[in-house]
Amino acid sequence: MHELILIGIGTGNPDHLTRQGEAAMQQADLILVPRKGPDKADLADLRRAICARVAPAVPVAEFDLPVRDAANPDYRHGVDDWHDAIALAWAAAAGSASRVALLVWGDPSLYDSTLRIAGRLSPPPRLRVVPGITAIQALCAAHAIALNEIGAPVVITTGRRLRDEGWPPGADRIVVMLDGDCAFRTLDPQGLRIWWGAYVGMTEELLISGDLAEAGPRIVTLRAEARARHGWIMDIYLLDRRPTAEG
Amino acid sequence: MHELILIGIGTGNPDHLTRQGEAAMQQADLILVPRKGPDKADLADLRRAICARVAPAVPVAEFDLPVRDAANPDYRHGVDDWHDAIALAWAAAAGSASRVALLVWGDPSLYDSTLRIAGRLSPPPRLRVVPGITAIQALCAAHAIALNEIGAPVVITTGRRLRDEGWPPGADRIVVMLDGDCAFRTLDPQGLRIWWGAYVGMTEELLISGDLAEAGPRIVTLRAEARARHGWIMDIYLLDRRPTAEG
Ligand SMILES: C[S@@+](CC[C@H](N)C(=O)[O-])C[C@H]1O[C@@H](n2cnc3c(N)ncnc32)[C@H](O)[C@@H]1O
Ligand SMILES: C[S@@+](CC[C@H](N)C(=O)[O-])C[C@H]1O[C@@H](n2cnc3c(N)ncnc32)[C@H](O)[C@@H]1O
Repeated sequence: MHELILIGIGTGNPDHLTRQGEAAMQQADLILVPRKGPDKADLADLRRAICARVAPAVPVAEFDLPVRDAANPDYRHGVDDWHDAIALAWAAAAGSASRVALLVWGDPSLYDSTLRIAGRLSPPPRLRVVPGITAIQALCAAHAIALNEIGAPVVITTGRRLRDEGWPPGADRIVVMLDGDCAFRTLDPQGLRIWWGAYVGMTEELLISGDLAEAGPRIVTLRAEARARHGWIMDIYLLDRRPTAEG
Repeated sequence: MHELILIGIGTGNPDHLTRQGEAAMQQADLILVPRKGPDKADLADLRRAICARVAPAVPVAEFDLPVRDAANPDYRHGVDDWHDAIALAWAAAAGSASRVALLVWGDPSLYDSTLRIAGRLSPPPRLRVVPGITAIQALCAAHAIALNEIGAPVVITTGRRLRDEGWPPGADRIVVMLDGDCAFRTLDPQGLRIWWGAYVGMTEELLISGDLAEAGPRIVTLRAEARARHGWIMDIYLLDRRPTAEG
């Protein structure tokens, strides 16, 4: 593998793909597509559909993503080992291909390990990154809202941080990702507003917005239903604590 | 105007445009392109080139962006008046077109007033937003770096905030935008690393990264030269203060 191209494909709408992403796929010798197990089958299907439509002449190699050893008591070490195993799986699936493309959900820079795993390939290939639409942009577009108030900061954080550390200091607006359990429930909802979305950009898209006190319980219910129905869910939300903020 | 579609076009590389953005342009009755004055001529040129290539059959209406009354002592009020004037200019340029597309730099949600201005149109048209690649994604892609450390938060802020308030609390990584004057110079550079980019995604692209103590002065010099040469500049940077952080 002489060159590895990480291509952000957006968050589930195949038309999130950019012209740059299309061209990069078409120029590749091989496209790697991870199989993620039955729960996330839809995501592998989306990748396959994008390949078939955008670069039908380029071979696709599917590979099973190694499973992380959750029993490893040293979390950090466990993740390192896992990333090494994934890098080996990429190299094996790539075979003798020289220019290899890897489709990354959303954008490769945002809460994604692909870049770190790529850093473990040896010998190191030339690395190129093609940016993609993130879940943050998709959420804001779906609600037709701005991410930030004029000139104001925004914090991007995770459900775990919100639950463990409360509202992050320094910003009146936050975006929460990687939240397996509606961490907004740990906040006092008084005065907070939420813009929530699941499967944003996909045909299954669900959107709820409003005062957290009122919208929060509706989100909890809808999320549980949707997760049970589809077998998996990805959701994201923006919270605002300014009493007089614009929409 | 019955429908207004705000289309994120990315940050200067015409191939940042998504398939969704292309389709939205092609379906419009009219595409509005602001003229921004001689300094930013390249940006209007880029929009024109995108229109000509992607939607050659759709008429393009150029209009002069009203100028903000900087003499208004009430800043907030001055901006409100200005936004009203822009909304009127849109309506005038749109004429009798029913489905109007407006090309927005980067993504419409990020440090951009288009959504707020759209909220001032009367009668209000149906509003649709097509997400686009932001300068943040373009910066990270150009440097092939992640935006965040694993599971860690990121703050997006402005040069003015950084200068006036120092390093924002709650995050070891920050992205700084809208910085007219290298606000990183107001920080003690010890232990800080920077990934900087100007004209990111464009043919003029400039990138510098390294320890702030060493890279900072190089950025200041290169930025001043580039700004003088082109007559305008847009730059963005990521700062990290963790001593042991990965790249
Ligand atoms: C491992 S991160 C990857 C993020 C991705 N790289 C991006 O740029 O959006 C996965 C998280 O992204 C968010 N996410 C990704 N796609 C989403 C979608 N279509 N709808 C809602 N949230 C999504 C969720 O918060 C999810 O927990
Ligand atoms: C008014 S904001 C608009 C941001 C845009 N909506 C986006 O999504 O990136 C303008 C700021 O974005 C950043 N920016 C936009 N395009 C850029 C580019 N091509 N290179 C570097 N910075 C850019 C700069 O920080 C600039 O001051």
